[in-house]
Amino acid sequence: MKKKIQVGVIGAGRIGKIHASNIVKNFPDVEVKAVADIYAEQVKDWAAGLGIQHVYSDYKKIIEDKEIDAVIICSSTDTHSQITIEAAQAGKHIFCEKPIDYDVDRIHQALDAVKKAGVKFQVGFNRRFDHNFKKVRELIQNGSIGELQIVKVISRDPAPPPAEYVKVSGGMFLDMTIHDFDMVRYLTGSEVTEVYTNAAVLVDKAIGEAGDVDTALISLKFKNGAIGVIDNCRQAVYGYDQRVEILGTKGGISVSNDAPTTVVLSTETAVTADKPKYFFLERYMESFETEMKEFFNSVVNDKDTVVSGIDGLKPVLIGLAAKKSYEEGRPVTLQE
Amino acid sequence: MKKKIQVGVIGAGRIGKIHASNIVKNFPDVEVKAVADIYAEQVKDWAAGLGIQHVYSDYKKIIEDKEIDAVIICSSTDTHSQITIEAAQAGKHIFCEKPIDYDVDRIHQALDAVKKAGVKFQVGFNRRFDHNFKKVRELIQNGSIGELQIVKVISRDPAPPPAEYVKVSGGMFLDMTIHDFDMVRYLTGSEVTEVYTNAAVLVDKAIGEAGDVDTALISLKFKNGAIGVIDNCRQAVYGYDQRVEILGTKGGISVSNDAPTTVVLSTETAVTADKPKYFFLERYMESFETEMKEFFNSVVNDKDTVVSGIDGLKPVLIGLAAKKSYEEGRPVTLQE
Amino acid sequence: MKKKIQVGVIGAGRIGKIHASNIVKNFPDVEVKAVADIYAEQVKDWAAGLGIQHVYSDYKKIIEDKEIDAVIICSSTDTHSQITIEAAQAGKHIFCEKPIDYDVDRIHQALDAVKKAGVKFQVGFNRRFDHNFKKVRELIQNGSIGELQIVKVISRDPAPPPAEYVKVSGGMFLDMTIHDFDMVRYLTGSEVTEVYTNAAVLVDKAIGEAGDVDTALISLKFKNGAIGVIDNCRQAVYGYDQRVEILGTKGGISVSNDAPTTVVLSTETAVTADKPKYFFLERYMESFETEMKEFFNSVVNDKDTVVSGIDGLKPVLIGLAAKKSYEEGRPVTLQE
Amino acid sequence: MKKKIQVGVIGAGRIGKIHASNIVKNFPDVEVKAVADIYAEQVKDWAAGLGIQHVYSDYKKIIEDKEIDAVIICSSTDTHSQITIEAAQAGKHIFCEKPIDYDVDRIHQALDAVKKAGVKFQVGFNRRFDHNFKKVRELIQNGSIGELQIVKVISRDPAPPPAEYVKVSGGMFLDMTIHDFDMVRYLTGSEVTEVYTNAAVLVDKAIGEAGDVDTALISLKFKNGAIGVIDNCRQAVYGYDQRVEILGTKGGISVSNDAPTTVVLSTETAVTADKPKYFFLERYMESFETEMKEFFNSVVNDKDTVVSGIDGLKPVLIGLAAKKSYEEGRPVTLQE
Repeated sequence: MKKKIQVGVIGAGRIGKIHASNIVKNFPDVEVKAVADIYAEQVKDWAAGLGIQHVYSDYKKIIEDKEIDAVIICSSTDTHSQITIEAAQAGKHIFCEKPIDYDVDRIHQALDAVKKAGVKFQVGFNRRFDHNFKKVRELIQNGSIGELQIVKVISRDPAPPPAEYVKVSGGMFLDMTIHDFDMVRYLTGSEVTEVYTNAAVLVDKAIGEAGDVDTALISLKFKNGAIGVIDNCRQAVYGYDQRVEILGTKGGISVSNDAPTTVVLSTETAVTADKPKYFFLERYMESFETEMKEFFNSVVNDKDTVVSGIDGLKPVLIGLAAKKSYEEGRPVTLQE
Repeated sequence: MKKKIQVGVIGAGRIGKIHASNIVKNFPDVEVKAVADIYAEQVKDWAAGLGIQHVYSDYKKIIEDKEIDAVIICSSTDTHSQITIEAAQAGKHIFCEKPIDYDVDRIHQALDAVKKAGVKFQVGFNRRFDHNFKKVRELIQNGSIGELQIVKVISRDPAPPPAEYVKVSGGMFLDMTIHDFDMVRYLTGSEVTEVYTNAAVLVDKAIGEAGDVDTALISLKFKNGAIGVIDNCRQAVYGYDQRVEILGTKGGISVSNDAPTTVVLSTETAVTADKPKYFFLERYMESFETEMKEFFNSVVNDKDTVVSGIDGLKPVLIGLAAKKSYEEGRPVTLQE
Repeated sequence: MKKKIQVGVIGAGRIGKIHASNIVKNFPDVEVKAVADIYAEQVKDWAAGLGIQHVYSDYKKIIEDKEIDAVIICSSTDTHSQITIEAAQAGKHIFCEKPIDYDVDRIHQALDAVKKAGVKFQVGFNRRFDHNFKKVRELIQNGSIGELQIVKVISRDPAPPPAEYVKVSGGMFLDMTIHDFDMVRYLTGSEVTEVYTNAAVLVDKAIGEAGDVDTALISLKFKNGAIGVIDNCRQAVYGYDQRVEILGTKGGISVSNDAPTTVVLSTETAVTADKPKYFFLERYMESFETEMKEFFNSVVNDKDTVVSGIDGLKPVLIGLAAKKSYEEGRPVTLQE
Repeated sequence: MKKKIQVGVIGAGRIGKIHASNIVKNFPDVEVKAVADIYAEQVKDWAAGLGIQHVYSDYKKIIEDKEIDAVIICSSTDTHSQITIEAAQAGKHIFCEKPIDYDVDRIHQALDAVKKAGVKFQVGFNRRFDHNFKKVRELIQNGSIGELQIVKVISRDPAPPPAEYVKVSGGMFLDMTIHDFDMVRYLTGSEVTEVYTNAAVLVDKAIGEAGDVDTALISLKFKNGAIGVIDNCRQAVYGYDQRVEILGTKGGISVSNDAPTTVVLSTETAVTADKPKYFFLERYMESFETEMKEFFNSVVNDKDTVVSGIDGLKPVLIGLAAKKSYEEGRPVTLQE
């Protein structure tokens, strides 16, 4: 019988739990041997329920465990690059939640460590594995709409996070838009060359007081000549709004939201349909499983990961440019 | 630690495998202790992969196993009632795939045995647990559309079964429409009182030669005064068509198909969207899990099952009336 | 300069006014010379506003006017056949609102008179000229969906007529469903051979007391082997519901309702769209103009009309069969 | 009998013909007494067909006609302001096609002349009268979506104009986007304060060689704090794309395209719907009639016009700022 891949999950918050649970349920050839969380006591029962043997408060226990082949890094963002470096040096394959870091130098250090160690490294841009967006990319790549002209991403949360969260989030562009920066790279297969940010505080003054914005239109230029705009808001009261719309010389593509049901109720007053699926857990659950499948596929078959270190770095660079553009009120090139 | 419910799966064809796999993955408190299939040799590897300890060719081994609390009957239809009787007599809770039997007397015998033994019994009308149809029922029950007037079910398969299958299927009304007979009972909360079948062989002559039809409009009268029509076809080339449409005195409800993605491609020639999800495995996978959850909930909490023995019997009675109506070219009442 | 076609409009109720106004506005080569209405006094101002010279209380003045080339018969149904006969004998081309008559013998007499006189005769089945349904027929005729299997027409009014109207209407099948009987003939290019009516009084008891039904599912068999069902209700509170749905061996066609706008409002509670266009004036206005255009085209270019006398007769025959089926509770063939 | 309003139409190209024909057909209280066109000979037959008495090659004949109450200015853009001045001085009410002029000083001169003369003046921003956009504005104004946050206009032509046209068009921002600049003012009820243009030549190099762009994303800031983006392209191969999408604190509004039919064809390969209505004549025909109705309503009832001189000026100012932004690669405020 084939030996199972042994995995350690570092950070058992919301996303860490999702990944651990997905692996236990759906990956018979993978075993979650250990979980590390600074609040180890609080995750014990949950881990036991999944049959995970070890729960540590110190992630280093996982790094030091020679039997563990791969780590899933789901701890707070400020620890990602450091843990990546340590895990790489210990020869472990790495799945790292986004963003790798808010600091570009530290990202480079982490990626250097990965390169040196020759381990697999995948960043958690799960939306690439979403059924809708995957098909958009396929249609673009197979030439269905010709050359790209306009790329639009709509990405709005159902409700704003607390101001406390906003303060440590790295700002909307690195916390929320970063997914969309990845999405435009993924869809277009091209790099962003210039960014202009038109943003405002229109949802919650506390977000403004925390030094951030909550509503933005980020205008983009791409290397391949196309132009684009990302549309973000921390609050869309009708629910999680996740769409893209692409115009090319031979056609257009649009994606509408997924809804819980297709039921339409028509009464004397209105024709009513479902709101979109509530938030990312409902909307993207399938993609969390698929990205993990791709990661283990890379590990087992010694293939390149489908979301590389560079794919982790670039959205951070675009995010920093978007922030600068907002602060300076001018278009900012990615070369600056 | 709480003792796990021990389960035996009888019949490991397509649907048996789905149930077994669902239980293993998603029910940590349930254990599939054994599987029985007349082709035991062919299912061994699959069972091992799921960690199922025992694979028998004779289902009686499961019936005789005192540790087994419940059976999931997924064998061929002609064996359902017999196994139900034996399992009931052995004191096991029973989840039985639809239909219970093609023979009304044998259904009664099976239900009598269940009643006598006091075990739980649930029939596999999984579509009741579908997200779309569940919401339709909720809207009807909460009075959103007032009194029911017209109930329409559209239920078409993507491709016809082989004529060989048709011959042993019990005929379209008991094999395919039976789901829809259950659906109208579930949605309306009322009983069918009269049936008129308008049917033809329009897909495949071999189906006609096998003594069956492949296309039908089955007109219904309900006890609550509403009227309805079920629309069946063994072949809709654009895919599995599963919709309902209800008219009431205060409004209407409609359900459209689920599609793999929401992507729309617009080109010089057309605006194109996805076809429906391909077939019942793609379309109803979630409902197979939910019905099982409800079954174990009934077992553990000693509650009535949500799809009772009567719910298993009635659609067979309607199906037989539909068949008679077709054969005699006249409306047939359920009282006859 | 070419001589204008001179027209007399007989009956200036709602539909008569629509036709007269359409001709005045959109047919520069046609002149409405006279209008006849038993309430001549009440339509005088309206006629003057359109520049119509003569308003008579007796339609015979129009029949006797040698200058008048064609009549548009919009009077009450019981007068259609008589006026048709007189107009034909006077050599006038005839556009006659539906139905020609409730009495089959009188229809035959009228059609005989038309034939003998060699005048053009078109029946007012305007829905044939609707943008949606015209395209459905084109797709069927060009083979887009192969051989027809299932034909469904949904046709529901937003609100029931007063019981007073119902009493003189000829009954729902001849008053309302007659449009749908024409539609299935138009769409399929085939004849109805058998009818089974499943109907009830579910909207307004007064309609039942007037001897009529208000909700019906009329099951159909066609000469080409296809089967179908017409779905009627005198009241759909969400508005005028006018759809068709066709299944063929190579595909399916569906038509949804036209709405006043495409605006969708999404709020915290719901995603809301427009109800359908309110009633036939809003929904079918364009088709009233088009049918008139086709009529004058037949007159001017001496072509067969696009809705012939037979097309006027057949739906009445189907309607009478539908009525009989309802009364006798059995399928009725059109040959009986 | 009330005296009819006498109208002169100046310029009988495509849009002039539409207005003249609309008035003749639908405004019984208005008479098109004369048409002026520099190619008088070419429009003679068309005018005769509509019963228009006079066709002049010199528009001054209309200005000098004391009986004429109002002029409809549909001549080439470079003549609008001059004719406006002359018509105002002659005391005639004025409906003027957009834009009033490409030169801001000349617009001011025209508006001054209008003011001095006290005549009515309406600019041809017909899209304000479109069923879809009118409803969007209503929903915004009645508070359905709370405070505005993001305003998006999608406005794409089905096919690019010839480069010859582009050269004299005033450039995309003044020729095409000007409608969208008006739309955002109309929808938001707020003024644009800053513009940033992200544009490119992606459709036709000849357009670039003519000194223009063909694809643009124009980022906007509004006085009320909202932000917005207009999305333009000279070519959307799938047809005329005319949509808006608004996000507010209490909800979102979206408008999709109008299509010729609601027919959906589902086959083995795809689910296909109609492309949008082809171009502005098909899409906006109704609005041309409605804007005229509003104009005559202002004239007859001595009310302010619904699209004022300021409404004609502002979009030109925004267009010029958009052009400057593109040329200088920076955001441009409307105050500069």
